[in-house]
Amino acid sequence: MRIAEVRVTPIAFRDPPLLNAAGIHEPYALRSIIEVVTDHGETGLGEGYGDAAALAALQAVGPRLVGTAVHDLNGLRRVVAETLAGLPPPPPGAELAPGSDPARQGANCYSAFEVPMLDLQAKRAGVPLHALLGGAVRREVPFSAYLFYKYARHIEPEESADAWGEALTPDQIVAQAQRMIDLYGFASIKLKAGTLPPDVEIATIEELARAFPGYPLRIDPNGAWSMETAIAAANRLRGLIEYYEDPVDGLEAMAELHRRTGLPLATNMVVTCFDHLRRSVGMDAVQIVLSDHHYWGGLRDSQLLAGMCATFGLGLSMHSNSHLAISLMAMAHLAAATPNLTYACDTHYPWVEDADEVVLGGKIAFTGGCVEVTDRPGLGLELDSARLARAHATFNRIAIRTRDDTGQMRKYDPGFSPAKPRY
Amino acid sequence: MRIAEVRVTPIAFRDPPLLNAAGIHEPYALRSIIEVVTDHGETGLGEGYGDAAALAALQAVGPRLVGTAVHDLNGLRRVVAETLAGLPPPPPGAELAPGSDPARQGANCYSAFEVPMLDLQAKRAGVPLHALLGGAVRREVPFSAYLFYKYARHIEPEESADAWGEALTPDQIVAQAQRMIDLYGFASIKLKAGTLPPDVEIATIEELARAFPGYPLRIDPNGAWSMETAIAAANRLRGLIEYYEDPVDGLEAMAELHRRTGLPLATNMVVTCFDHLRRSVGMDAVQIVLSDHHYWGGLRDSQLLAGMCATFGLGLSMHSNSHLAISLMAMAHLAAATPNLTYACDTHYPWVEDADEVVLGGKIAFTGGCVEVTDRPGLGLELDSARLARAHATFNRIAIRTRDDTGQMRKYDPGFSPAKPRY
Repeated sequence: MRIAEVRVTPIAFRDPPLLNAAGIHEPYALRSIIEVVTDHGETGLGEGYGDAAALAALQAVGPRLVGTAVHDLNGLRRVVAETLAGLPPPPPGAELAPGSDPARQGANCYSAFEVPMLDLQAKRAGVPLHALLGGAVRREVPFSAYLFYKYARHIEPEESADAWGEALTPDQIVAQAQRMIDLYGFASIKLKAGTLPPDVEIATIEELARAFPGYPLRIDPNGAWSMETAIAAANRLRGLIEYYEDPVDGLEAMAELHRRTGLPLATNMVVTCFDHLRRSVGMDAVQIVLSDHHYWGGLRDSQLLAGMCATFGLGLSMHSNSHLAISLMAMAHLAAATPNLTYACDTHYPWVEDADEVVLGGKIAFTGGCVEVTDRPGLGLELDSARLARAHATFNRIAIRTRDDTGQMRKYDPGFSPAKPRY
Repeated sequence: MRIAEVRVTPIAFRDPPLLNAAGIHEPYALRSIIEVVTDHGETGLGEGYGDAAALAALQAVGPRLVGTAVHDLNGLRRVVAETLAGLPPPPPGAELAPGSDPARQGANCYSAFEVPMLDLQAKRAGVPLHALLGGAVRREVPFSAYLFYKYARHIEPEESADAWGEALTPDQIVAQAQRMIDLYGFASIKLKAGTLPPDVEIATIEELARAFPGYPLRIDPNGAWSMETAIAAANRLRGLIEYYEDPVDGLEAMAELHRRTGLPLATNMVVTCFDHLRRSVGMDAVQIVLSDHHYWGGLRDSQLLAGMCATFGLGLSMHSNSHLAISLMAMAHLAAATPNLTYACDTHYPWVEDADEVVLGGKIAFTGGCVEVTDRPGLGLELDSARLARAHATFNRIAIRTRDDTGQMRKYDPGFSPAKPRY
């Protein structure tokens, strides 16, 4: 069974004005939807970054995969490497837009095609993707409530307000958490931080701990804190959080922070490839790695990461950027088949509006905070061509071509700087 | 597709009187042939250790797999763990008989069933096993000529002599190499050492280097040398060998030897599981790991090992015990799909007589020292029921139930001791 056609469709979907260390989310998030069609007429689905450089790479690789066997992942790796070698290097990308990160370009691009090839392999075998990945050790994959400080609406007057309202105080975040838990049943909570003064963010964790006793809590300042701030915060957060995600920036700083506080540190910023992992192991820099198949090079390499975490005694959790159902289900199948993925996964999915989903049936449901994997073959998803066309039309209508949280924030605050440490 | 029946058949086949650090091979080697039959009537094949403890574990696990989906490798892992927890612990086993090594029992047993389950997965998908493992990066998998010092015949008078004759001198080993290369076309050479005085063994390498210029050479004393012997030998072997395999015993000793000689050290003795790998990485004890899917926990975990070797800058080669075609083809498919397996693999297969092979068509051919992987589904092998019955009858006829190279050597030399360092 060989690849007969590859379609790469850039799409855009509405994104609320969520705050982070780099600035603020723009009104639209970009993704690429990948359809890999075989000579038997079956289609495998993938979802990757939609930033201009990532999209250019996907569009260059796609046609060169025609004729490749759907099982030939080593062949995919070769085609990606050869194709990218012939492209201009992508511009430097922000850490929060790994789709544009030059160092991740190969892994990003590989992953975007590996998932649809695995989807096809599973469909050919008549099994769900989790079976292809070794079999589900859990059918219900827990996700965490991913809370953001946010404005009530975007600065662009033509963009309507979202349903979530403003969240700039601990009380407003507790209300956001309550709403998200009421809607989806999440049993753990992550707070995106690094944006308001640390006192407010730590107070927010304290409020969440009071409001949701027994819920595992996480805080993620995205490397925006100085060592002193992170150590002072550690003294207040100790006992309240299950892990402390990227409070400071850089492997060396994380190693020092762990030595000085003893708190388990998690990351999706300083360990984002196998060479980082090698270095981190030597320094005991981080204790929990947030896997992300989009930039770790696909689902099989994410399983390799899981095996390394098991070997080196590291915890394993899962990172998320803004994404739709194809990424969500790839994450869920992977997590279902990964015994040592014992933390609830992150996801931005609650921030997506149902009308913007591109698969048949609209948004995937959370039940009790979990996504249930089914026994439908492969990912278990089909594209809705009308929804896809609408999302592609949105992409064509807007001007955004590369995620730029900093530029967006400067529309609100021209003097804004994302320089680190910010606090 | 679920498992409907599992057959575990112990077999024995003739083995020449090959010398090693533990003693000498007995007249028969033991293996277990595994047939996993699905509710669709398809059969997947596996081959594992045949020592009593390993066989007992396989026979206990087999029936408990009925009903397991052929994709459910995590389910296999659970059944193996639960079953072995209910068995008496195996007796201490020799390093050269990893089938009896208590620490490897779970991985051994898992691997013996994982291969047939992967064989079935590939057959179901209609693809060769190398495709299921990610796609062949090479279709011809190189193996090395595996030379042994040996006696002309076993001490048991009823056992007929093999075709290879005596090899107790450098000249006789050169002749053995020439014969093996003439027959099979090998382009690299491994010498099993640790048995004759080191001077003779080093002189053998020197003779091989003269007789086969340009052939990569390896020497494997199986940990039988003292630090002083290994360092003195290193001075003569430097420039002649591609790697120095297990000259001394223990991770700490290997680390010291590498520090003191700078020679790349390979092992299948001190790094035989992921925890050893973790420790070795911290000490820079070995530079090349010899993978062996039988005790590393199957083909997928061997791919995990390969990924770790790539991450930590370790070379990757492949180990062999006495085995038949099913193991050989599993090794070949794995090697074909492993980009960083850049060394020729070891194999004892040339020492097997064609009449003792259990698959249809008899022994697998080497061409130019390589085994070619085909596009036949799965492993590409079928059992020959008459051959299997004969090999099982041999098992029933003989008294050997656990490999005991030391006991066998004591028939020739009652005072023989395998204590290390021997030299």
